[in-house]
Amino acid sequence: MITMTSKANPLIKQTKKLLQKKHRQSAYLIEGWHLFEEACRAEVPITRVFVLPDYLEQLSTYQGQVVCVSEQVLKELSSSQTPQGIIAELPIPEQTFLQKVQGRYLLLEDVQDPGNVGTMIRTADAAGFDGVFISEKTADIYNPKTLRSMQGSHFHLPIYRMPTLTSLDMLQAQGVTCLATTVSKDSVDYRSVELPSSFALIFGNEGQGISQEVAEVADQLVHISMPGQAESLNVAVAAGILMFSFI
Amino acid sequence: MITMTSKANPLIKQTKKLLQKKHRQSAYLIEGWHLFEEACRAEVPITRVFVLPDYLEQLSTYQGQVVCVSEQVLKELSSSQTPQGIIAELPIPEQTFLQKVQGRYLLLEDVQDPGNVGTMIRTADAAGFDGVFISEKTADIYNPKTLRSMQGSHFHLPIYRMPTLTSLDMLQAQGVTCLATTVSKDSVDYRSVELPSSFALIFGNEGQGISQEVAEVADQLVHISMPGQAESLNVAVAAGILMFSFI
Repeated sequence: MITMTSKANPLIKQTKKLLQKKHRQSAYLIEGWHLFEEACRAEVPITRVFVLPDYLEQLSTYQGQVVCVSEQVLKELSSSQTPQGIIAELPIPEQTFLQKVQGRYLLLEDVQDPGNVGTMIRTADAAGFDGVFISEKTADIYNPKTLRSMQGSHFHLPIYRMPTLTSLDMLQAQGVTCLATTVSKDSVDYRSVELPSSFALIFGNEGQGISQEVAEVADQLVHISMPGQAESLNVAVAAGILMFSFI
Repeated sequence: MITMTSKANPLIKQTKKLLQKKHRQSAYLIEGWHLFEEACRAEVPITRVFVLPDYLEQLSTYQGQVVCVSEQVLKELSSSQTPQGIIAELPIPEQTFLQKVQGRYLLLEDVQDPGNVGTMIRTADAAGFDGVFISEKTADIYNPKTLRSMQGSHFHLPIYRMPTLTSLDMLQAQGVTCLATTVSKDSVDYRSVELPSSFALIFGNEGQGISQEVAEVADQLVHISMPGQAESLNVAVAAGILMFSFI
């Protein structure tokens, strides 16, 4: 197989655009063997794989399209300094139409930091949640940083992007109890909450928390009592504490 | 007050060095009003404050040394693009000699990511823990990223840097039960553990987990059972779940 060495190659130039959000309408890139293996295991479609010559052998049983590239070209397609030998292009799946919601859901209202968003989805996956709803202002799940902290969890559970009030409306209409988390003590401590089998936990923006509108529509407001001196918890940590306390 | 506008000023050049770990033997920098106010509230010594002219008034009751600097000079001293108008230099406190350990402790063995380390210390503070022990290879707590995610918690609880086996030895000698966390199922699920009032929770490196030596010396190994598909949790999330389940 010929190794592609030119950064000016049209395929490379086209693929590189996927590092920018505005160009990620229908495809995105994953980096590293761990994510690639997760994608294969989840049997999601993979458009093509860019790999260094040294690693070609590791793909000997792989059936899809493989493009062998030089280190310089791989770096061009990578958001990190160390792309770990492999980058794959995947199509962004169409958002499925949600007919029935039942089970445990995580709702993110304008969570900004890609690391937090990725970590929260990974935790929801670990906790066996059934899906995640994210608002339009929540960090892009196909952002390289989100993907890195999500560690492939978007292959395991459905993620729906829509305004938080729309998802709340749909969830409540189907009898899912919606809990909004807050730092305010004018709410119930999570330890005293008993939840039905179908519920959704809503987490807000790192600085502002949940919006007034969401607080009003939610079935209950909860907080985590903190015996110590810190004013608040990191939102991904708070989400972990709540998700694991409710399973 | 005269505004310092030269990046070549010896004080600025000297202070700027504190952004590099090798120069942070005895002093470090904090950025932003939130951390500055936390430092004042905690009544820790502050060597001097660098502030933009626009914010001078906010320091009208502040008794310490104030250096008024231009935006360009402030950026020079900052590790972020937006230094939020204020940077302060603080002495690194001498490590206090530990005579007695009793209570709840967090132990970090070679946790590498400054964001994780800062978040874990912040969570320990929120949970009302009594102190944190960090190994020598754990990320520097005076790293700007650690400080940002720690949000001032190092003003609230003591942090001791020493080899993990040394801290374990000391803790166990004083009857503190030491729990090491692992992803291995050959350990006890945290929900079935009953802890005495004095205990320490040990978390290991993001990639490798805790070392073999620490696993052998620890009183018990615990893991978090995960009903979902994710292979593991982010270490700061895992620490949050455990710390809050044991208070």
